[in-house]
Amino acid sequence: MAGFNVRSVLVTGANRGIGLELVKQFLEKPNPPEWVFATCRDPEGERAQQLKNLVSRHPNLVIVALEATDPASIKAAATRVEEHLKGSGLNLLINNAAVLKLNTLESETPEDMSLVYTTNVTGPMLVSQAFLPLLKKAAQGSNQKGLSCSKAAIVNMSSEAGSIQNVLIWHVGQAISYRCSKAALNMLTKCQSLGYEGDGILSIAVHPGWVQTDMGISLSPEVRAPVTVDASVRGILNVLPTLSEKDNGAFVSWEGKVLPW
Amino acid sequence: MAGFNVRSVLVTGANRGIGLELVKQFLEKPNPPEWVFATCRDPEGERAQQLKNLVSRHPNLVIVALEATDPASIKAAATRVEEHLKGSGLNLLINNAAVLKLNTLESETPEDMSLVYTTNVTGPMLVSQAFLPLLKKAAQGSNQKGLSCSKAAIVNMSSEAGSIQNVLIWHVGQAISYRCSKAALNMLTKCQSLGYEGDGILSIAVHPGWVQTDMGISLSPEVRAPVTVDASVRGILNVLPTLSEKDNGAFVSWEGKVLPW
Repeated sequence: MAGFNVRSVLVTGANRGIGLELVKQFLEKPNPPEWVFATCRDPEGERAQQLKNLVSRHPNLVIVALEATDPASIKAAATRVEEHLKGSGLNLLINNAAVLKLNTLESETPEDMSLVYTTNVTGPMLVSQAFLPLLKKAAQGSNQKGLSCSKAAIVNMSSEAGSIQNVLIWHVGQAISYRCSKAALNMLTKCQSLGYEGDGILSIAVHPGWVQTDMGISLSPEVRAPVTVDASVRGILNVLPTLSEKDNGAFVSWEGKVLPW
Repeated sequence: MAGFNVRSVLVTGANRGIGLELVKQFLEKPNPPEWVFATCRDPEGERAQQLKNLVSRHPNLVIVALEATDPASIKAAATRVEEHLKGSGLNLLINNAAVLKLNTLESETPEDMSLVYTTNVTGPMLVSQAFLPLLKKAAQGSNQKGLSCSKAAIVNMSSEAGSIQNVLIWHVGQAISYRCSKAALNMLTKCQSLGYEGDGILSIAVHPGWVQTDMGISLSPEVRAPVTVDASVRGILNVLPTLSEKDNGAFVSWEGKVLPW
């Protein structure tokens, strides 16, 4: 992570799993960001306790309420972050919040298709729209050439389960709504890379591995998810600083491999 | 189209554009299907007039009400089709109904994201679920080996605009919700190919070209869509009979080219 100098980062869905671990590892860097914004639906609730415990030790951590399916909540979060940044931009937006429903081709429902798409695709789109002015400001305020995650970037947490070519671990769970949402998120990422490149913003889709989070474990009671949360996030934070304009719009794994759509 | 002997075919969104032309060209074949089921939202409405004009000349054409966003309507349509088939199966299901909204990264809305996904992805999924018993019956009743469109197949009308690799005609229109929905539909197709192969059902995603339909023309007032409806559908009906188990889950164009995801 040498040279990964992110002044400000925002992580959605940061109260547990990969989101929480991203926040922790950013805070524990030798050169931590000036601001780490950790969003979750309900900062006052029981499920945000681990985040709250971190705040006492890390004054650069700010917990922000953000419900990714609610445009008003997203706008309010962007306003709060802007106030904290006091005129500077946001370098790194990590759209991590997501849900999984374990339906098959036979049992998939319109309700779950809609819920999963709204959370996993429309959410990241709306969050990116809302924080775009702050990302642009970070790019404009940077003296770095090209594109990078320390300058201005949107990182969408995708999944190889959403690779139409690979359809990772189909035998473990069909999860139709989830796979369709992640393929769509990859398309959103590609569109963002085309639309925001001129603004100096890098857009990347990341596969974090099949990780031992609540979500990753829920997928299968028999086969254990192979990647620890710690290893996944260490991998991601090693890969992000290596990405530049040549990677814009790509789909990369926590191990730095380029994945097929 | 020699050797393309489809006993029964169902086309959704059949009251205009590519759907209507598919119905016409199936009816005009030297060996037309015994049953052509043409579905649209409102068979009694003004917009179904061209379909109704065809019925008088083609007793093998049945117009069926089907609203792809309404599970009850889809089930009722499957029941009606089953009654007509009198114990035989449905060979070919063409999920053609779709909508387009012309929003950009900046102007895209949660409402359009939801509407387009529900129509273009959840719709084909629900229609496939509802007609699966009839597709299975067609496969079981066939003496053909392997997979084919004349035995039992799901054809999802996708678009190269939904190819994450190619992002066809990005400069003409961003259409974020549409592109995301078609990438997701490609994933659904791949999942169906994995899930239904054992039932003897072929699953294919088709790119019809950028076609001079109302939808294709609406995309751009300046640049004219290059492909006529007639040529697109002739192409599709030339390609479908060439597809077999080696193509299961593929993304093919109206000209027979395999497209990247």
